[in-house]
Amino acid sequence: MALQGKKLINNPDDVVTEFIEGLVETYPGLQYLDGFPEIKVVLRADAVGGAYDKVAVISGGGSGHEPAHAGFVGPGMLTAAVSGDVFASPPVDSILAAIRAVTGTMGCLLIIKNYTGDRLNFGLAAEQAKSEGYKIEMVIVGDDCALPPPRGIAGRRGLAGTILVHKVAGAAADAGLSLADVAAEAKHASEAVGTMGVALSVCTLPGQVTSDRLGPEQIELGLGIHGEPGAAVVELQTVDVVVEHVLKQILSQETQYLPITRGSNAVLLINGLGATPVMELMIAARKAVPELQLEYGIAVDRVYTGTFMTSLDMAGLSITIMRSDENILQRLDAPTKAPAWPVGSEGNRPPAKFPVPVPPSPSMKDDEILSERQELSKQGCMLEAAIEAAAKELIDLKDNLNDWDSKVGDGDCGTTMYRGATAILEDMKTRYHMNDAAGTVNEIGSTIRKVMGGTSGILYDILCKAAYASLKQNKNITAYEWADALEASIAAVSKYGGASAGYRTMLDALIPASTVLKQSLKAGDDPVTAFIASAEAAAAGAESTKQMQAKAGRSSYISPDHLVSIPDPGAMAAAAWYRAAALSVKNKLHASES
Amino acid sequence: MALQGKKLINNPDDVVTEFIEGLVETYPGLQYLDGFPEIKVVLRADAVGGAYDKVAVISGGGSGHEPAHAGFVGPGMLTAAVSGDVFASPPVDSILAAIRAVTGTMGCLLIIKNYTGDRLNFGLAAEQAKSEGYKIEMVIVGDDCALPPPRGIAGRRGLAGTILVHKVAGAAADAGLSLADVAAEAKHASEAVGTMGVALSVCTLPGQVTSDRLGPEQIELGLGIHGEPGAAVVELQTVDVVVEHVLKQILSQETQYLPITRGSNAVLLINGLGATPVMELMIAARKAVPELQLEYGIAVDRVYTGTFMTSLDMAGLSITIMRSDENILQRLDAPTKAPAWPVGSEGNRPPAKFPVPVPPSPSMKDDEILSERQELSKQGCMLEAAIEAAAKELIDLKDNLNDWDSKVGDGDCGTTMYRGATAILEDMKTRYHMNDAAGTVNEIGSTIRKVMGGTSGILYDILCKAAYASLKQNKNITAYEWADALEASIAAVSKYGGASAGYRTMLDALIPASTVLKQSLKAGDDPVTAFIASAEAAAAGAESTKQMQAKAGRSSYISPDHLVSIPDPGAMAAAAWYRAAALSVKNKLHASES
Repeated sequence: MALQGKKLINNPDDVVTEFIEGLVETYPGLQYLDGFPEIKVVLRADAVGGAYDKVAVISGGGSGHEPAHAGFVGPGMLTAAVSGDVFASPPVDSILAAIRAVTGTMGCLLIIKNYTGDRLNFGLAAEQAKSEGYKIEMVIVGDDCALPPPRGIAGRRGLAGTILVHKVAGAAADAGLSLADVAAEAKHASEAVGTMGVALSVCTLPGQVTSDRLGPEQIELGLGIHGEPGAAVVELQTVDVVVEHVLKQILSQETQYLPITRGSNAVLLINGLGATPVMELMIAARKAVPELQLEYGIAVDRVYTGTFMTSLDMAGLSITIMRSDENILQRLDAPTKAPAWPVGSEGNRPPAKFPVPVPPSPSMKDDEILSERQELSKQGCMLEAAIEAAAKELIDLKDNLNDWDSKVGDGDCGTTMYRGATAILEDMKTRYHMNDAAGTVNEIGSTIRKVMGGTSGILYDILCKAAYASLKQNKNITAYEWADALEASIAAVSKYGGASAGYRTMLDALIPASTVLKQSLKAGDDPVTAFIASAEAAAAGAESTKQMQAKAGRSSYISPDHLVSIPDPGAMAAAAWYRAAALSVKNKLHASES
Repeated sequence: MALQGKKLINNPDDVVTEFIEGLVETYPGLQYLDGFPEIKVVLRADAVGGAYDKVAVISGGGSGHEPAHAGFVGPGMLTAAVSGDVFASPPVDSILAAIRAVTGTMGCLLIIKNYTGDRLNFGLAAEQAKSEGYKIEMVIVGDDCALPPPRGIAGRRGLAGTILVHKVAGAAADAGLSLADVAAEAKHASEAVGTMGVALSVCTLPGQVTSDRLGPEQIELGLGIHGEPGAAVVELQTVDVVVEHVLKQILSQETQYLPITRGSNAVLLINGLGATPVMELMIAARKAVPELQLEYGIAVDRVYTGTFMTSLDMAGLSITIMRSDENILQRLDAPTKAPAWPVGSEGNRPPAKFPVPVPPSPSMKDDEILSERQELSKQGCMLEAAIEAAAKELIDLKDNLNDWDSKVGDGDCGTTMYRGATAILEDMKTRYHMNDAAGTVNEIGSTIRKVMGGTSGILYDILCKAAYASLKQNKNITAYEWADALEASIAAVSKYGGASAGYRTMLDALIPASTVLKQSLKAGDDPVTAFIASAEAAAAGAESTKQMQAKAGRSSYISPDHLVSIPDPGAMAAAAWYRAAALSVKNKLHASES
């Protein structure tokens, strides 16, 4: 398909200028040189004007590698970055403007990637600046390990390893070193770094058609960062295999690209090429670290995983290894405000794992209850009877609930409730300690979630957990504490489930029940009377759902017309078990009084 | 094509666990809970063990949104993050494990995105934790502005605005506030934030086929972050139009999603959805800031541009606006070590532009020369003659150079040299001040680069600039200073051009010339003798390129067989102008002596 690649841009000719404008909007510490549209320079706002009292460190090159290089401008890293057009070296005048803007008496180090255009343009700018009286040094980075050692000079491209050289040089300059010393540290770093990439897709230049060079199951190894083809095309493999291959090539003892052997220390940089999700970069880091340590005997001092040096919207990653020593680590760890340098990678690595904490063991009180289990208190007997009655009511109501639910939901409300009720009847024989009302309610929640599953299971468990948390605050549990617990339960279900009164859910039964229970107790009614009145309110509330539109749960996807005159089965179930419990308490009390 | 989407992963079932393992390899301040594979929790290594003395702030949800949420764990932001499988809420036990691992006596705030699964699972974990004695609060973020205001609860999804709520809460907790106060600040922030996204592509779940839902010129507006379709599909537009549309929707006075009006202050977050290059995000920021300020009268206090809350490998971005006040800015600006929180966005924004510095004005010395122009010194006359002879020699040699170059290069060497020589003959009449040898050499460089272009133009300019810098250090210029200047020139060309002796370039003429010149002068020869000997060395050097393989320049791409017996035209040109200059100096001296 000969369509332009999809990009969120305006005029393809303006992408670099507009990128820089957005960059300085985002980072208040950065400025750009204004006045000549072809001059695209980002600089530290606090280093301009010729009075900068440390060595200026400038990098740059073609655009399309964002965040490189402008994203690495900041105290402790680059003083300025010079951007060319996409994949084109910046003109000499831009580079000169950057040098003039930030270079003080300490001089300026230019760090560039090994491409002919950059070497020549930065080189000429350097010579011109020298002739204007500036002290200038240049370090050229060629970290590419994709190809056999070159006959000539063009073989080793500058890739993501350049970013590590920036950091070393920037930190050395920030420490107040002389130009010669900063340049020497940068050169030392540049000679200790190697990089190789793998691409899943080809990058698309702004306004151009995407190449279909790579098939749907192919990847390229040893690519450049300017859309040039990779050294080899292979079938898509797992990332573990890809990482093994890339490390083998970088660390090859044949090519001797890197001064790294068994026993060396190194830092690792996993770099996304523009369109690679963080997840995939981290998965590659997970493989590379132990591979380096166990297979190559290299101690990995630091890991930098992220997006540093891209090739526009290319999917894929590159791996960079740099031999490290104490001085390099100090430079890499030094603080910087450069926006694109990673935070949190500095320092030595403690064990990465912490054991899952064990839940608190049952308290002494629970143990006591266990031993007391045989003798049920009067309260315990009543609770047992109420739970049994409520569960049996739900079992009886199974077909009705399924029937209503088949008209307004997915038809399994009765079956789900039946499953929960049956499990409660089973568990109550062995696992519930009825003298401990709070604990029993907690256990009911666990029983329900275990067997019911889905949204209703978790909501009933939330109901029980909230009631438990409320009840357990009290030593003596009377009707008032039960009323508070019901209120807390409703609040939790409403908060986490998101429903309120009138949403056509079980809360339309429970909210009126709670309100009436509190009112009735407050009015001085005896607990049983209040419980019964509250149960009637629950039933009336459940009935009222027939006239409601659904605002939560599965019924909310159903046309209101289909809902009229069908009650919400969840509300009907709640009213039913609540009423059964109330009647059982009443009967139990009458029985004991008679 | 029903192929799996290309990803750098291993087993699709392991992506979350492997992501977390890579994350903790990268950031030494992070740990993960070990022991139960289904528990995927990242936490601050310094906050585990129950002794944490501030409010713990925990977030989480389904995976696939990296760096959210694990990338935001760190001092000053989240204390722990709980990951579910891709796009699936984490189970209750994982959330509980996280709470138990990091919650101390100050309690724990859970911040979640408004999805039913997250509300219920985090809700149940909260209730369970409360029943274990922990102090827990929860804030639910629903910042989606894509759809009309909802009737029910499901309408407003939690999107990238959640990250800003994390930051506010994390900074409040870090400041030592109580749980109630931290929760209140988080709630306040969650009510002041709105988000809307635009997608260029659909995300692909690990191991699954990529949907072809979006056509090659379509984009989706108002998407979610779980692959669900957007609110509308429209034709691809410029990013400026897209940003205008999204801002209009977020700030709609009809829906009143945000408490923001003309005169309000706000912060802006431009979020990449996983596969969006930094360049495009910055271009969107560049549009959004002035649009908010000029069209809506909203002062933009901070801009956060980057990748925060993704949808796997989706291409596109979301825009988030949060009303800001002094307290929120203080929380957003507070330092954090969370790796994925942006660096350098804090603080107020100074002017973003700095004028391009003016090059240094010509020195007094240059002005004096200008006035002295009429009277040429003996040295000046000799220089004038040498330049003229050298230029004329190149003009004569045009066809030969082109002929050689057509066999080993692109055939234009003679034409290019002719262009430079002609321009020198023209400029020397008006622009060169021959009494100032250094300045003249400098001007020759400028003339050459202006008309020659390409690599050879810039290399000759480098040659001249380096000679200029060397010559101008001396008041009195003798043959020794010229010899030093030639040496410096060669060093510069070699450094920036990357070639050395034997690379089949002009250096193969100039290096022997320089060597012989220095030797001869050192041996006590008179300058003219030394110059002539050196010119003969240059000619011999150029001839010797016939036997050389090319290691630099265009010839390096040509088979060695084709190069045999053809000299390098660049070397021949250099030898020719050098020899012509030497002969002219000799003749001039003889003429003046006779």
